[in-house]
Amino acid sequence: MLWELVGSSAAVLTMFGFVPQILKIHKTQSVEDVSLWMLIQFCLGMLLWMLYGLHIRDNILIVANAVSFSSLIVAIGFFIKYRKNCRRNCKRTK
Amino acid sequence: MLWELVGSSAAVLTMFGFVPQILKIHKTQSVEDVSLWMLIQFCLGMLLWMLYGLHIRDNILIVANAVSFSSLIVAIGFFIKYRKNCRRNCKRTK
Repeated sequence: MLWELVGSSAAVLTMFGFVPQILKIHKTQSVEDVSLWMLIQFCLGMLLWMLYGLHIRDNILIVANAVSFSSLIVAIGFFIKYRKNCRRNCKRTK
Repeated sequence: MLWELVGSSAAVLTMFGFVPQILKIHKTQSVEDVSLWMLIQFCLGMLLWMLYGLHIRDNILIVANAVSFSSLIVAIGFFIKYRKNCRRNCKRTK
């Protein structure tokens, strides 16, 4: 019961781990400091974790990574949408 | 053998998933568009996945999440270090 709670909490936290980043991108409409490679690497990684979860028949692994994978697709979509907004046009004080 | 490769690839990709973001922060010295909540949420999530991995005795889960957790500590350190660099001092064209 305790370990189910630990696993479920881990799942919920990482499942929705990119949600704060998605909300921030949506709010600022800027992705200048966000790494696209991070998003792509996680997207592929989560897909493979999901397949591995199917193999070892661990439902928590499967569901958590399926949701993460979906959120990463949204994040990459937002990245592509907003990447032109500030690219090389920002005037920074530093 | 195939599934070990799938699990290991998933582990390597997500283990080093935040490395591109860390390198980008180090290069630009700016974290304005990066969500701190994303980093904190993943940090806690990876810690719990690691504990869950210990429980189900899955070495891939344990090692992958231990490395991710460590990289997140670095990312959060960088975030704190560079968060003042551009905060509310950026002049954006949009």
